[in-house]
Amino acid sequence: MSIQNQTKLNIGLFGFGVVGESLYKVLEQTPTLNAHISKVCIKHPEKLRNAPASLFTTDAETLLNDPNINVIIELIDDSDAAYSIVTRALTSRKAVISANKKLIAEHIEELIGLQRQYNVPLLYEAACCASIPVIRNLEEYYDNDLLQGISGIVNGSTNYILTKVFREKKTFADALLEAQLEGFAESNPALDIEGTDAVNKLSILLAHAYGVIVHPQSLLHNGIQQLKAEDAAFAKEKGYEIKLVARAKKLQNGKIAAFVLPQFVVGEDQLYTVNNEYNGVVIESSLADKQFFYGKGAGGFPTASAVLSDLSALRYNYGYEYKKLSNNNTAAITSDFHLKVCISFKDLLQVPHDSFERIIEWSSNENRCHVTGIIHCSELVNSKWWKQPDVSIIVYPNGIIENYRPGKTNAGVNLELAEQLV
Amino acid sequence: MSIQNQTKLNIGLFGFGVVGESLYKVLEQTPTLNAHISKVCIKHPEKLRNAPASLFTTDAETLLNDPNINVIIELIDDSDAAYSIVTRALTSRKAVISANKKLIAEHIEELIGLQRQYNVPLLYEAACCASIPVIRNLEEYYDNDLLQGISGIVNGSTNYILTKVFREKKTFADALLEAQLEGFAESNPALDIEGTDAVNKLSILLAHAYGVIVHPQSLLHNGIQQLKAEDAAFAKEKGYEIKLVARAKKLQNGKIAAFVLPQFVVGEDQLYTVNNEYNGVVIESSLADKQFFYGKGAGGFPTASAVLSDLSALRYNYGYEYKKLSNNNTAAITSDFHLKVCISFKDLLQVPHDSFERIIEWSSNENRCHVTGIIHCSELVNSKWWKQPDVSIIVYPNGIIENYRPGKTNAGVNLELAEQLV
Repeated sequence: MSIQNQTKLNIGLFGFGVVGESLYKVLEQTPTLNAHISKVCIKHPEKLRNAPASLFTTDAETLLNDPNINVIIELIDDSDAAYSIVTRALTSRKAVISANKKLIAEHIEELIGLQRQYNVPLLYEAACCASIPVIRNLEEYYDNDLLQGISGIVNGSTNYILTKVFREKKTFADALLEAQLEGFAESNPALDIEGTDAVNKLSILLAHAYGVIVHPQSLLHNGIQQLKAEDAAFAKEKGYEIKLVARAKKLQNGKIAAFVLPQFVVGEDQLYTVNNEYNGVVIESSLADKQFFYGKGAGGFPTASAVLSDLSALRYNYGYEYKKLSNNNTAAITSDFHLKVCISFKDLLQVPHDSFERIIEWSSNENRCHVTGIIHCSELVNSKWWKQPDVSIIVYPNGIIENYRPGKTNAGVNLELAEQLV
Repeated sequence: MSIQNQTKLNIGLFGFGVVGESLYKVLEQTPTLNAHISKVCIKHPEKLRNAPASLFTTDAETLLNDPNINVIIELIDDSDAAYSIVTRALTSRKAVISANKKLIAEHIEELIGLQRQYNVPLLYEAACCASIPVIRNLEEYYDNDLLQGISGIVNGSTNYILTKVFREKKTFADALLEAQLEGFAESNPALDIEGTDAVNKLSILLAHAYGVIVHPQSLLHNGIQQLKAEDAAFAKEKGYEIKLVARAKKLQNGKIAAFVLPQFVVGEDQLYTVNNEYNGVVIESSLADKQFFYGKGAGGFPTASAVLSDLSALRYNYGYEYKKLSNNNTAAITSDFHLKVCISFKDLLQVPHDSFERIIEWSSNENRCHVTGIIHCSELVNSKWWKQPDVSIIVYPNGIIENYRPGKTNAGVNLELAEQLV
């Protein structure tokens, strides 16, 4: 076993935006890393760059065909273009680092296949929570049987908005505007707000935590676009905050419950302390118990720091092993469990109340109704009523219920009567 | 670059206590790890073990001379015996995993030399904060210039005691007893209580964070043995809690301030959320900004989980590079800075008040005096008055002061007069 098997890294970089330029600067200042950017492929040669003109090209082939380049780093915004770069690079037996969560999430099966076929690594620590080394840590969790669950705040932009609403009493609209001004939102903010970015990350986490390959769009998810000021007030009354949480939990039958939904978070939960643009992930396992990783989930330097960590790993020939995927894994996503949720709405007609297994609590005022109840996950998967602009859904702490036994009454709530009262 | 270079690990294990047995169990249940315990060396063959008798020997040489054993895992309590095992194993070109913080901290320079000379890795993630992968993460921080500081709660036993005192209003004595009953204390609890364990860990952190090799006993440190109930009350009044914090900070002149002392911690600090036997480390860097790692810092399974993570790393030939040490590093520990501290005491004669650069605040009642002031670090390094049983010292948040400019008066406090009043 050697500790001196450093590979010299000659890098072909795609993209010279905030992250790319941060990376370039750091590598220039860190000769000890034994990594050097040979060429940068950019889309807009007319833009002024803070680097020698000789470094740049608009021709991807220059990088992909250069036999001296042994690492391709892909940091572009366009996930379709990224797909063709990354797959071309892997088939050319170049190691690849990517920060593109959409690309990874949607094509992970193919990308794993290419890594195996061509025996080259693809690393993407930056694609999930930027500076937080969550993928690497999940990879080193040796056995998925021991991993009980993951709860993460994985989207900085929505978390920033929720923090401003809760801590600084701003409106959702003002807070969104502020997040955009601060540059915490994706180039298309809907990707953040509607939970798309978060569910992409959840799907990457699922592959490394449980060896489950699932297309992000087929996972139950929602964002914060439907939350109302009244929901924040309702949460506060109960001593909660609302966070957008990516959740995965191994059920007793070995199947995995997984979703991205707004969730009430209590003060004792580590996620309660994750504010503004920060991300945080709680990993529960049988051995290590509860681990919490916290850090900046977005931005040029935090993302560059994750890319650098991948580069550093390439020097000792590190590659993800996806061993949970290889071990004849029978883990699969299930929607056969119940959730304790709060549904908030204006007009009772929007909510098919026979969807609930049980109504636990009911409150309404002239602006808004809040119903707390138990609902089967498949009811959410198979319906769309809870995606109406005027309806919001928030999961309770410990809201995943296995083996729910009905039989209790609806807390004395006569919904037909309630309907007439609204 | 290969992602299939798995090395089959044949393990010789020293020690079969809580951690050793946990490790054995997990490896038995995890054939996919491609790691197998060939032999276990124990001290007491008469003890009943939950493993086949054929696995055990009392002869260290059987393990160290077996050419099929390529990994030695050392999990024994006696750091002198551990030293001879680990050095023998390295010189026999076997990879080594150790959880022994005292051994690593006190002999790190020699152990690094042996790794280089014999080109074999020594990994010891479990030696610092057990399940929290802090060493691996510091190693992958590519450049020490970018690492601004570390603050950590690295001793679970003292943190457990402080939590019980603060959150459950127990006395220090009762809380210590409880920690011992819960098994969170070292076999010699003084090692925890007096800060020895914490400063061992700080010295390991310093090597990986800044490439500074320093004997733990030469670092400024204290434990919680002198804290009084009145100190807890004083802290609470100001909205603080007291935690035992291992702190390292890179000063503007490139030198490193480093110490383990009780510290007031504010609610916004991530360390505030670290309670009971948990550990937490905040790493501040220019790129990633602030990262926080939290998890169980002690116990059989959390420690075994760190050992497993090291085993997993050995499969792809990972070794610490100590690159911050190699890069002609000029970083060194300094005591040339000021600290804002609270000194609490019963008898003013115990505290040489001309030690202070400035007194900011003074309060006293019939039980206790509290003086808040600015003191030069070298005053603490070169004196012992603050180690008297009846004196306690607590550092304020952001208490490291660079370039302190005297000139302000002593907040109107006439210490000679105060002395007469006590």
